[in-house]
Amino acid sequence: MEYIQRPSAMIQNYLESSIKWDLLPAHLADTARYGTLDGGKRIRPVLVLLTCEALGGNPEEALPAAAALELVHCFSLIHDDLPALDNDVLRRGRPTVHVHAGEPMAILAGDLLLAMAFGELAGMKMPSDCIAALVEELANGTRDMVVGQVFDTLGGLPEDIEPLEQLQMVHRNKTGALLRAACRMGALCAHADGDKLDIMTTYGEAVGLMFQVVDDLLDVTQSAEHVGKATGKDSALGKRTYPGLLGIKGSETVIDELCQQACDAMAPLAEKAIPLQELCRYMAIRTR
Amino acid sequence: MEYIQRPSAMIQNYLESSIKWDLLPAHLADTARYGTLDGGKRIRPVLVLLTCEALGGNPEEALPAAAALELVHCFSLIHDDLPALDNDVLRRGRPTVHVHAGEPMAILAGDLLLAMAFGELAGMKMPSDCIAALVEELANGTRDMVVGQVFDTLGGLPEDIEPLEQLQMVHRNKTGALLRAACRMGALCAHADGDKLDIMTTYGEAVGLMFQVVDDLLDVTQSAEHVGKATGKDSALGKRTYPGLLGIKGSETVIDELCQQACDAMAPLAEKAIPLQELCRYMAIRTR
Repeated sequence: MEYIQRPSAMIQNYLESSIKWDLLPAHLADTARYGTLDGGKRIRPVLVLLTCEALGGNPEEALPAAAALELVHCFSLIHDDLPALDNDVLRRGRPTVHVHAGEPMAILAGDLLLAMAFGELAGMKMPSDCIAALVEELANGTRDMVVGQVFDTLGGLPEDIEPLEQLQMVHRNKTGALLRAACRMGALCAHADGDKLDIMTTYGEAVGLMFQVVDDLLDVTQSAEHVGKATGKDSALGKRTYPGLLGIKGSETVIDELCQQACDAMAPLAEKAIPLQELCRYMAIRTR
Repeated sequence: MEYIQRPSAMIQNYLESSIKWDLLPAHLADTARYGTLDGGKRIRPVLVLLTCEALGGNPEEALPAAAALELVHCFSLIHDDLPALDNDVLRRGRPTVHVHAGEPMAILAGDLLLAMAFGELAGMKMPSDCIAALVEELANGTRDMVVGQVFDTLGGLPEDIEPLEQLQMVHRNKTGALLRAACRMGALCAHADGDKLDIMTTYGEAVGLMFQVVDDLLDVTQSAEHVGKATGKDSALGKRTYPGLLGIKGSETVIDELCQQACDAMAPLAEKAIPLQELCRYMAIRTR
């Protein structure tokens, strides 16, 4: 996808060269790098850079915020994969971090990446009110993501709401919160005002939920080789999923609707909206 | 210790009443509160409030920064106690968080507290350049603390330095980094300039190392009942410690020297220095 390639390369380069890995002891740095520099799709930081650019900001200036979001995402994968949580041994086609470096190192490297993410924001060359707003977004997004992981693995959802609502509550937190934060942080890096921040929030929320419905669907329809991690786990664990509740066709309909919502939200930005609309459509058809 | 009581009560009250626990699902909130509201001594946040006050700042305004530091400290205890790391079952006289709430919840509650710590800073009623500086301090302090825990449990220290230097490197990171950050964050909340920030940095570094030498000594000389956690663990694990390297008398001498260093650093503040000097002396004699 052409709109992804340039920002994705910018982020990969930043993560490799601008993060101060050399301040860390070698084995910790190796583990943190292993969990970060592994060729993920970088959807979250790409969203930061593209939303910033769509609102007239300079994506170069937003790079540390984009990297911070990716560090948080990578920290969450490392911890979620731990034996006590999802107990996954394969991620993006490679052994997960605790398989690679041991469980103690995986726990600590995850903690480290979360702390370093906020360090990235603090070091930005941005007006400090912008930095404070970015810290708030990232902190709230991370908090909500953890809440989503708790719902997903340990329950605790309100019992007086419909199963589909419960599932949305898991997804909106577990995956949606950080994708929403990505879009809002990109907007903040462009010094966006209320209306423009609202546009990006609506886009981010629709894309965030859509992303997880797509993920649910991939878990059912694709092989592990294709996705790069174990599939079929959701139904094996008896987890509630979109295809489980709505079927494959029903889930595809939801994906299409959310994609449309996201693209419509961007309409006021006219041609500036095109990269984000294309990215959304690209994410929607991962399952087809 | 009279100088501790008032700030300690302020922090306890803030942690109980001003942290937004009610935004969280009940079982996660319960676990996070269990790991936070457990009657620890609150040394780190007390240092934030007392350093702020010693430099003419308003400790009420510094409360969220003090709470943030305590949240980071509590997160680190929860993760350090995990079976994969120190595998401790007793902390402050109670079952550790993973014994109380299970390992998955302990991992996630720790992650949550770290994210919420930065949220506390972002929401402060302070000039935003002060917030950005506080975020930087807390992020670096947390990073260095994780580095210290890695050194302590997984090795990786430089081999070309003396054993005592290696031990200092562990302690300065594992315990010292956050105590240093506490003093600097208190100074930042008082909008301290370069010289005053330097004073608090010197004080914080001496107190930080002293605190861990005291802890090493307690592990040798005191019963578990007295300390509130398992003792005798260091030597059982073959860990290098101050009493192991310098003996009990030698360690006491180091404590006295570091205490003197810390108190001397504060001399320029005249009578404003008294509470911090008293706190330092109080921490030094925990072992006697």
